[in-house]
Amino acid sequence: MDDFSMLPMAADDDRLHEECGVFGVFGHDDAAALTALGLHALQHRGQEAAGIAAHDGRRFSIERHAGLVGDTFTRKAVIDRLPGRRAIGHNRYSTTGGAGMRNVQPMFAEFAGGGFAVAHNGNLTNAMILKRELQRRGSLFQSTSDTETIIHLIATSNHGQLLDRFVDAIRRIEGAYSLVALSEKKMLGCRDPLGVRPLVLGKLDEAWVLASETCALDIIGANYVRDIKPGEVVIITDEGIESLFPFEKSRSRFCIFEYVYFARPDSSVDGRGVYAVRKQIGAELARESGIPADVIVPVPDSGVPAAIGYAEASGIPFDLGIIRNHYVGRTFIEPTDAIRHMGVKLKHNANMGVLKGKRVVLVDDSIVRGTTSMKIVQMVREAGAAEVHMRIASPPTTDSCFYGVDTPEKSKLIASHMTIPEMASYIKADSLAFISIDGLYRAVGEAKRNGDAPQFCDACFTGDYPTRLADYEDRGKVQTLPRLAEAS
Amino acid sequence: MDDFSMLPMAADDDRLHEECGVFGVFGHDDAAALTALGLHALQHRGQEAAGIAAHDGRRFSIERHAGLVGDTFTRKAVIDRLPGRRAIGHNRYSTTGGAGMRNVQPMFAEFAGGGFAVAHNGNLTNAMILKRELQRRGSLFQSTSDTETIIHLIATSNHGQLLDRFVDAIRRIEGAYSLVALSEKKMLGCRDPLGVRPLVLGKLDEAWVLASETCALDIIGANYVRDIKPGEVVIITDEGIESLFPFEKSRSRFCIFEYVYFARPDSSVDGRGVYAVRKQIGAELARESGIPADVIVPVPDSGVPAAIGYAEASGIPFDLGIIRNHYVGRTFIEPTDAIRHMGVKLKHNANMGVLKGKRVVLVDDSIVRGTTSMKIVQMVREAGAAEVHMRIASPPTTDSCFYGVDTPEKSKLIASHMTIPEMASYIKADSLAFISIDGLYRAVGEAKRNGDAPQFCDACFTGDYPTRLADYEDRGKVQTLPRLAEAS
Amino acid sequence: MDDFSMLPMAADDDRLHEECGVFGVFGHDDAAALTALGLHALQHRGQEAAGIAAHDGRRFSIERHAGLVGDTFTRKAVIDRLPGRRAIGHNRYSTTGGAGMRNVQPMFAEFAGGGFAVAHNGNLTNAMILKRELQRRGSLFQSTSDTETIIHLIATSNHGQLLDRFVDAIRRIEGAYSLVALSEKKMLGCRDPLGVRPLVLGKLDEAWVLASETCALDIIGANYVRDIKPGEVVIITDEGIESLFPFEKSRSRFCIFEYVYFARPDSSVDGRGVYAVRKQIGAELARESGIPADVIVPVPDSGVPAAIGYAEASGIPFDLGIIRNHYVGRTFIEPTDAIRHMGVKLKHNANMGVLKGKRVVLVDDSIVRGTTSMKIVQMVREAGAAEVHMRIASPPTTDSCFYGVDTPEKSKLIASHMTIPEMASYIKADSLAFISIDGLYRAVGEAKRNGDAPQFCDACFTGDYPTRLADYEDRGKVQTLPRLAEAS
Amino acid sequence: MDDFSMLPMAADDDRLHEECGVFGVFGHDDAAALTALGLHALQHRGQEAAGIAAHDGRRFSIERHAGLVGDTFTRKAVIDRLPGRRAIGHNRYSTTGGAGMRNVQPMFAEFAGGGFAVAHNGNLTNAMILKRELQRRGSLFQSTSDTETIIHLIATSNHGQLLDRFVDAIRRIEGAYSLVALSEKKMLGCRDPLGVRPLVLGKLDEAWVLASETCALDIIGANYVRDIKPGEVVIITDEGIESLFPFEKSRSRFCIFEYVYFARPDSSVDGRGVYAVRKQIGAELARESGIPADVIVPVPDSGVPAAIGYAEASGIPFDLGIIRNHYVGRTFIEPTDAIRHMGVKLKHNANMGVLKGKRVVLVDDSIVRGTTSMKIVQMVREAGAAEVHMRIASPPTTDSCFYGVDTPEKSKLIASHMTIPEMASYIKADSLAFISIDGLYRAVGEAKRNGDAPQFCDACFTGDYPTRLADYEDRGKVQTLPRLAEAS
Repeated sequence: MDDFSMLPMAADDDRLHEECGVFGVFGHDDAAALTALGLHALQHRGQEAAGIAAHDGRRFSIERHAGLVGDTFTRKAVIDRLPGRRAIGHNRYSTTGGAGMRNVQPMFAEFAGGGFAVAHNGNLTNAMILKRELQRRGSLFQSTSDTETIIHLIATSNHGQLLDRFVDAIRRIEGAYSLVALSEKKMLGCRDPLGVRPLVLGKLDEAWVLASETCALDIIGANYVRDIKPGEVVIITDEGIESLFPFEKSRSRFCIFEYVYFARPDSSVDGRGVYAVRKQIGAELARESGIPADVIVPVPDSGVPAAIGYAEASGIPFDLGIIRNHYVGRTFIEPTDAIRHMGVKLKHNANMGVLKGKRVVLVDDSIVRGTTSMKIVQMVREAGAAEVHMRIASPPTTDSCFYGVDTPEKSKLIASHMTIPEMASYIKADSLAFISIDGLYRAVGEAKRNGDAPQFCDACFTGDYPTRLADYEDRGKVQTLPRLAEAS
Repeated sequence: MDDFSMLPMAADDDRLHEECGVFGVFGHDDAAALTALGLHALQHRGQEAAGIAAHDGRRFSIERHAGLVGDTFTRKAVIDRLPGRRAIGHNRYSTTGGAGMRNVQPMFAEFAGGGFAVAHNGNLTNAMILKRELQRRGSLFQSTSDTETIIHLIATSNHGQLLDRFVDAIRRIEGAYSLVALSEKKMLGCRDPLGVRPLVLGKLDEAWVLASETCALDIIGANYVRDIKPGEVVIITDEGIESLFPFEKSRSRFCIFEYVYFARPDSSVDGRGVYAVRKQIGAELARESGIPADVIVPVPDSGVPAAIGYAEASGIPFDLGIIRNHYVGRTFIEPTDAIRHMGVKLKHNANMGVLKGKRVVLVDDSIVRGTTSMKIVQMVREAGAAEVHMRIASPPTTDSCFYGVDTPEKSKLIASHMTIPEMASYIKADSLAFISIDGLYRAVGEAKRNGDAPQFCDACFTGDYPTRLADYEDRGKVQTLPRLAEAS
Repeated sequence: MDDFSMLPMAADDDRLHEECGVFGVFGHDDAAALTALGLHALQHRGQEAAGIAAHDGRRFSIERHAGLVGDTFTRKAVIDRLPGRRAIGHNRYSTTGGAGMRNVQPMFAEFAGGGFAVAHNGNLTNAMILKRELQRRGSLFQSTSDTETIIHLIATSNHGQLLDRFVDAIRRIEGAYSLVALSEKKMLGCRDPLGVRPLVLGKLDEAWVLASETCALDIIGANYVRDIKPGEVVIITDEGIESLFPFEKSRSRFCIFEYVYFARPDSSVDGRGVYAVRKQIGAELARESGIPADVIVPVPDSGVPAAIGYAEASGIPFDLGIIRNHYVGRTFIEPTDAIRHMGVKLKHNANMGVLKGKRVVLVDDSIVRGTTSMKIVQMVREAGAAEVHMRIASPPTTDSCFYGVDTPEKSKLIASHMTIPEMASYIKADSLAFISIDGLYRAVGEAKRNGDAPQFCDACFTGDYPTRLADYEDRGKVQTLPRLAEAS
Repeated sequence: MDDFSMLPMAADDDRLHEECGVFGVFGHDDAAALTALGLHALQHRGQEAAGIAAHDGRRFSIERHAGLVGDTFTRKAVIDRLPGRRAIGHNRYSTTGGAGMRNVQPMFAEFAGGGFAVAHNGNLTNAMILKRELQRRGSLFQSTSDTETIIHLIATSNHGQLLDRFVDAIRRIEGAYSLVALSEKKMLGCRDPLGVRPLVLGKLDEAWVLASETCALDIIGANYVRDIKPGEVVIITDEGIESLFPFEKSRSRFCIFEYVYFARPDSSVDGRGVYAVRKQIGAELARESGIPADVIVPVPDSGVPAAIGYAEASGIPFDLGIIRNHYVGRTFIEPTDAIRHMGVKLKHNANMGVLKGKRVVLVDDSIVRGTTSMKIVQMVREAGAAEVHMRIASPPTTDSCFYGVDTPEKSKLIASHMTIPEMASYIKADSLAFISIDGLYRAVGEAKRNGDAPQFCDACFTGDYPTRLADYEDRGKVQTLPRLAEAS
């Protein structure tokens, strides 16, 4: 729709962003309302736009709106336009560029055999190659989204049955994806062969639930059943649930950054509680790079669990030396110059009583460009801190993500071109330390990183990408790629 | 404007709400932009609507909008419509009822002698009596706000000069008020004789700043000068700053609940840091009603500082056993029934790993109706807690506030009709304790409450109102009053 | 409301504009819906904004919206917000300047004795003098409208009863006004002592109706009872209808331009059908300034009846030589330069088949600035007309109106500084003639204009103003006055 | 876009509606602004939505908005988003159903070889058959519009060059269509082999113009060159203009109803002025079914030219006995019941002075359901007419149109199941007559209808459809078809 003009969100552009959350319910009278709740619990995975597709046994209905789930999807009128006992939903981080609402999901297509709606979390690494091929044979694209590529692959598959067509399509795509889809009779859930992005299965009374994270099961009171396996396709019908494994067996490479930052602390992945992992990272940090100090201060909110873990392990008191203003939600859309120069203070303020005269250890989850860290160190120092030591709950972020996380290109990542001492100097900290890669693996319960067959995708810390990057290779070196605007 | 329909905010109706924040700048090129920032820092004092009035030496301009400050007041176009080196602003908690935007502040009037804009935090207790009197002599009211009463008192004063008219007006009003006003030549700041609501003076280069709290000085980098004194009128002009004390001397009765909950933790009042007071309350609580436990868990976010203080004093670990979803900002405006029944989970989720099998001490700031506490106790228990003990960082809230805080009527306050053991049983906690009134006074640095001349307004805990309640007395007993819809 | 930004309408600025229509119903279940219909029938009297105030026996409700009546006031939700058996309404031509919706009517005030809503058609000529006086004694003005002056006069009257206060107020105002007002118990209708603006009384079953024109009675099937008399106040209550005549008897001076252009052709005033008068004007024109021609072509739509009359009287065929595009309603709000230069063609196109090679008599209602006439003559000539003769259904417009019609200042009126031959040359017509002032009086049924005591207000043709122009006199010469932005 | 909710227009549902207008400019600096003007002149062909696609030599831009052209397309900001010297545009009558803005044109597709935008006036009669076939081979449809079918036919054509693909596509479609399209290098114009819908070629300086009617050339001052021929494809490039005739030669069957009602009176088709034809229809009517009377009254506005022709031919005076309220544009969207029952008076009012005591001949263009005619006859009679005779400027409308006109299904057409006397009795006229089919042909300049090879498409009067109706035949009898919601 051309009337639509998407306002750029006031997202913190010095943090990495998960780009989507997905959710689905099959077999509940309040399917759409439950989906709205699930998406609300997954709001941290995408704040730009949300969509729900529902099916009432005869037809599909779909609503997609810019903004937070709570802004529209909790109005009775909107939910009433989504009748039926089956629904899937999607949160989107970004709808960049002119494409506007056309890229918002779930996407819907009318196949010869019936309707099909799909919601996608991840990013394909051969979508552009496939798109050019499909266009050459007459497929018309309405959006710039990977998801539409998947739909066209299904539409043009030579197979007869929808499920066969779907499998045919996912066998041709590469990259990271967790999909939730709705056809006339089925709900499908699917993870890529490496299981890079999360997807869990839950049950609420007789209804099956699929969700990016367990916190979305909690909000509706659904029970956690299990994580969908890497490379698994689950098929949910009125008759029950079945699984397909259409890929060759491969080792799981779950995104380790989900533990560090993306996932909500009250979620758990494969049985590991995210909050506990983060506290453990803090404890590892204290052990690896402890330093004498008076107070452990988190950069709120993401640094809080690691800071608590650090404080416990070190015996140094934990205190809120930085106060975060939570009203920044959609704020400061077109800041004036005057406001731009105030910088980080819009969001954070020093709590002087805690900091004055103290040796402070600041704990944050990661450093991307370094600009935020620099401002925070300065703010803490201006509040009277005697020393400011920065401890980071992840290894240095040296490489871009091509699997559905919005990262700056490699050259913008401070760790790609500075040593740790250079970074310490740049952010003007008295000391700076990152957790080691093995320390991080220990915090998630492994003995160490298995260099031959890493247990997780950690490409952003190691440059070790677990798949081909076909779309990028033919354009030259990966590290010079522009930011991936259209990942979903 | 009739086109406007104000949506009820998703405010947590089981908490008390400060009803306004005020701010002013005199003598800075970016007066309106700085005011927007100041209001943003004061957003916790009112989220429904915001307004800014500016004066460029020749004329006034004014912008008032529903929603958060950041939604509109950071757009260049809006700030550009507010030229001049002088500006005042206002955040409003609630614009209840049909009055809509007419009640949004700053209010502006064109007197015979020139324009006058005023922003008000507080509530008058004789506004209705004055209004009826003014109407009888021909004044026409456009709003239902106390602030308009003040304006009419100025307009109809027999004095000649604006300042004399202003003093004439404030001598006739009763109740709690912190005012910031702008005339053709002056910025005025004023606190009621008891100083119930806060107001501080700051300086940014050559510009004078008035703000409800010090955190609004911090955001723009202004220096804190001092708190405006109870009963003081400061007059700021191009020539400098002067003070008037038009009232008989009386003892200060600052609202003690500002320390407990309303003020931002990084603010300080009369030199006392709010965060430190809250931690101290937690420590007092641990001393007064400590209990063996495995973990101290705050009800986020307001319970966090007291919980840290409790944990430190008791030596029991502090942990985030409840995770708050911060995306509830303006969300769930018209929840469906299905959603309404999910209740508190929209905002809070149990962090099971922290709670399972543990003896849990929950720390919250206050109990109003008790419904939220009940749900939180239940949620924590369902997550597997072995015991759930509730500790409250304020004494039982037994009486309504008539000084600018949105409280339910007395009969809705659970503490007005239940004993503490009854409340413990109602919320299904294994134990429940509130800080004592003297404990609270100790936490703010007093030896104890002076029963003959209390150092603070604590009427919500004691029923000891420091002023006449003229508007309410003639309608019968105070405790049966309806909620004060139009306080500001 | 500051959110509101009023877009300037694409009103034809080379025509005079009636500035308001008023309507009221007392005693009908569908009072608000009927009022919406009445206002729709009166839409030609004002297209910028409309408002309705209703009273349900206990309280007032009011809705005011920018745009056409049909855009909002026919939505069930809007009408449902206007309950009660009594309603008044208002159409507004213009809400110029920053005042925005604050000037939109009906205006409402809460007096000590109850609510009062009033809608006004006309313009006061001593409103500014009265306003200054009221401000000096403490009245605060919210708008720039005359109507508010009337309300403050009522509020500050020394009389006790509302009706006495109302009479007190209208005795102090000067100028032209037809008012419809609603109090807790009564509907009032009132015309100024000269009856410059129209107001009629109708009946629909048991309900009384007041309206600017009879066409607004027709649309709801109400019967025409009579015109309200100059200087009459009608008081309608549940008990029936009464009249007051609070002024000294004076001769009627009804606005003769209502017959020429403002009123709808299907209305009648004082028993004279407007359409018949216009045809008669055309016939008089043919007699006074007939010329040999092949076709009589109206400038649509306002020139049509006079052109038919001219054609009948002259025996020359009538034909639609100019086609009007009726979709220009609210269009071309911010035309590009390219569009601005296309000028009049947005609205009118030559119908070449009718014009080519013909001697054409164009009939229009009036000439204001002359720019439109010039473009139309050119367009007709370019379509191949052999001769173009312009005949105007009113005398030359030489003077501004101060009685509620939006006229340019005198110096912009082409007839104020050009002779008829000069005007003919300016608009490039082969001949130009206006009806004579006596011809116009004959067309409305008088023998001739009575120079000593003119039967109508014809100040725009004669400069003979029937009242003092107090607001303007003290600023200097009437003819140099700026356009009356705030008439209503 | 799901945010969009299309309000049903207050279209007069007792009239037939042309469903689209198209326009294009190639080679002018103000291409988009000129297209906006052209669409404004063609507004009578579609009022629901409008769109413009422009090309600046490198890329396409497109804007589509609900509402009148003048509501959005004359804002500088909108035109500025449409840069380039080439533009095409489209007015749409109806965007029924959930498809919302997705059906609004021009439609745009990105082919492997570049972008392509197309605007379509008409209706295909084999679109559904083609759509099913395309879907089976994997094409995904985003809309329910015929135009998308054409685009997919081009996309999947086996030919290499775009022009060959375009010709390949139009050879497969059946029905009525006038297309204007824009590719990277060319503007195309095309009429179906029978030339059912109009399309003319004009020139403005060096720029070529395509438009549905000549009135759209007039508004921008372009010269009429010629009508595009039935079955012709014109190809306009920077090098000039060429024509292709890819179909076998067939006789023209232009829609005769364009002369009766759809086209603007100031347009001409194939050199015949529409206004002159309508006057001639009135003259024929007077001859065929004249009756003694006092006044000839048109049902405005469409009946006016025929009424003038009737009056001239009969010597009976023409007068405006019915006044139309032109402010009904987008009004009365959700009328209350009270308003619905007032019916036709929203739009028309009797002009009593003209009708009272008179024998009245009413002239209207057509009768569809008969409900409007009945109300108008009643209104005229209530205004005092002695006799009411209805004369209709077209033959009885007995059959639905499948060529791009919004007609009710056959069973709703009063003439499909009543004789003329029955209709006269139903509408309560004293007499009723329609022009004969041969009379209509005479009015457009033919001697009579050639029964073997009719010169026009007159299927709505004769049931003689000039093409196959493939989509409808396989669903059973044509006359039971539901209304064609998605024609364009």
